[in-house]
Amino acid sequence: MSIHQLFSQYENYRKSQLFFGNPETLYAPMNYIMDLGGKRARPLLVLSSCISAGGEINSALPLAQAIEVFHNFTLLHDDIMDNAPLRRGKPTVHEKWDMPTAILAGDNMLVAAYEFLMNYSGPEKERIFSIFNKTGREVCEGQQMDMDFSQKDHVTEAEYLKMIELKTAVLLGCAAFMGATAGGSDEETAKLYYDLAIHVGLSFQLNDDWLDAFGNPEKTGKQPGGDIAEGKKTWLYIAAKNKELPIDEWFKNQNVEERISITLEALKAHALDAELKQLAASYEEKANQDIKLLKARNQNTAILEELIDMLAGREH
Amino acid sequence: MSIHQLFSQYENYRKSQLFFGNPETLYAPMNYIMDLGGKRARPLLVLSSCISAGGEINSALPLAQAIEVFHNFTLLHDDIMDNAPLRRGKPTVHEKWDMPTAILAGDNMLVAAYEFLMNYSGPEKERIFSIFNKTGREVCEGQQMDMDFSQKDHVTEAEYLKMIELKTAVLLGCAAFMGATAGGSDEETAKLYYDLAIHVGLSFQLNDDWLDAFGNPEKTGKQPGGDIAEGKKTWLYIAAKNKELPIDEWFKNQNVEERISITLEALKAHALDAELKQLAASYEEKANQDIKLLKARNQNTAILEELIDMLAGREH
Repeated sequence: MSIHQLFSQYENYRKSQLFFGNPETLYAPMNYIMDLGGKRARPLLVLSSCISAGGEINSALPLAQAIEVFHNFTLLHDDIMDNAPLRRGKPTVHEKWDMPTAILAGDNMLVAAYEFLMNYSGPEKERIFSIFNKTGREVCEGQQMDMDFSQKDHVTEAEYLKMIELKTAVLLGCAAFMGATAGGSDEETAKLYYDLAIHVGLSFQLNDDWLDAFGNPEKTGKQPGGDIAEGKKTWLYIAAKNKELPIDEWFKNQNVEERISITLEALKAHALDAELKQLAASYEEKANQDIKLLKARNQNTAILEELIDMLAGREH
Repeated sequence: MSIHQLFSQYENYRKSQLFFGNPETLYAPMNYIMDLGGKRARPLLVLSSCISAGGEINSALPLAQAIEVFHNFTLLHDDIMDNAPLRRGKPTVHEKWDMPTAILAGDNMLVAAYEFLMNYSGPEKERIFSIFNKTGREVCEGQQMDMDFSQKDHVTEAEYLKMIELKTAVLLGCAAFMGATAGGSDEETAKLYYDLAIHVGLSFQLNDDWLDAFGNPEKTGKQPGGDIAEGKKTWLYIAAKNKELPIDEWFKNQNVEERISITLEALKAHALDAELKQLAASYEEKANQDIKLLKARNQNTAILEELIDMLAGREH
């Protein structure tokens, strides 16, 4: 089984589980956002963890769908909070319909995520429900931390790392834990899958921060420094503040191109680009250690490694 | 055990279960809305159904809390959608904090409702989860129908009744069903509790529509005709339209007091006040039949009847 085949299997299942009900004005936005596409990283992580743990994917499909529906619920509500006009190049739900419909469609997707969870008939249901609830709470906490940061003068690196862990990494952890549990792992082994996904998630997020600032535009497809131009509190901003560099002064330049180039040059002059790259690499190294621990427990991690490499944009 | 004692027991439990976590900006609004008060009709319905069915209330307390947290989640999000400034005389969450915080606190309350559900350790967990999910979906559908009505030229009476059933009655039905199940009822008997609560909910809502238009201001504490002044599509508006009465013409009067008095007189002249009263009474009659059916199954309905009378404002 390759990741490509797994993707097809998930997509076939997903298309067999479209939302359906009345009024149609509630259900159409739910299908709309689910159909916008994406790499389906989270459901693929559920399914590949299940296979790694020695299971068959059928019992894990409702879990994969619960995670993907939950993820899309967060996208829907985050887009309202961020006032975002576009999602994957298409109008966001609150733009295409309206804000009340977007709130309600999101709410109904959260309920639907629990309905998919309820369809799971594999082992350790209690454990599955419990991690899903905990994760749901943590993702809300992460989003609130992110919003709070925009109002705060000072954010520590530890707070930033905690925020990205809660906002993005724990859902990957939950996906891997649930998949491994469905595949037959005991709790201790499933926890190793969880840790692996957390470390992978953190390294991805930090690499994204790096790519946004210093990436090759020919490869990333966007101009460098987008986050900086928007004044986002990424790792780079926080690290600069914590080194008492005058980043707020650099940001005052009214010319956007100059603002970006001055800021990026200054960050490089203080080696923050290298420091960020190193931090991301340290989580990648932790993920490699997790893989070793899983192999030592006779877990068949090949497809999971293939997925991680694919998501990291590495050739296999 | 009296309703008054049951209320105290629920409140003690509720206060022992305050939300707690970081960031505090996420958890404070959740406790704020839960603390605004209210009759606690839904948790009391869970607990009194449990007693009626012959159970002890301890196992039903987490269910009562799940329902109350879910209900407050819907209030929180509905207030955003309705742009409401006040809830029980206090600023709404999106006014006191802001809209993104209100969305997120609501989302986290929905997750928290499921966490309370998970704490239930009584009989028939699957059945409890399944009705809760179904109800969550239906409440979203009811809210969407309500929003859609404001854009629609024509709404039938059946559509209006379906909307109030989904928006308000099914959560009462769910509360009664879960309480009875926790108390030991089989599915068929629990379904009778469900029907009873649906009928009670519909009669309450229709009585509220009547009271808003024709109630004695000395008893209701508000000027009659508030819904009409706001142009809301209540049963009276829909019935007038369906009788081809020129209610939109009456509504055009720029003087609010005249608009209300002209409309109310015309509705009375066409006996729509009596028709609404009769419709509400027909659901009350159905509820009485449900009580008889429950008694025929040896259910001890005394405390449930006391609760319904109290909620209806009837002396016992």
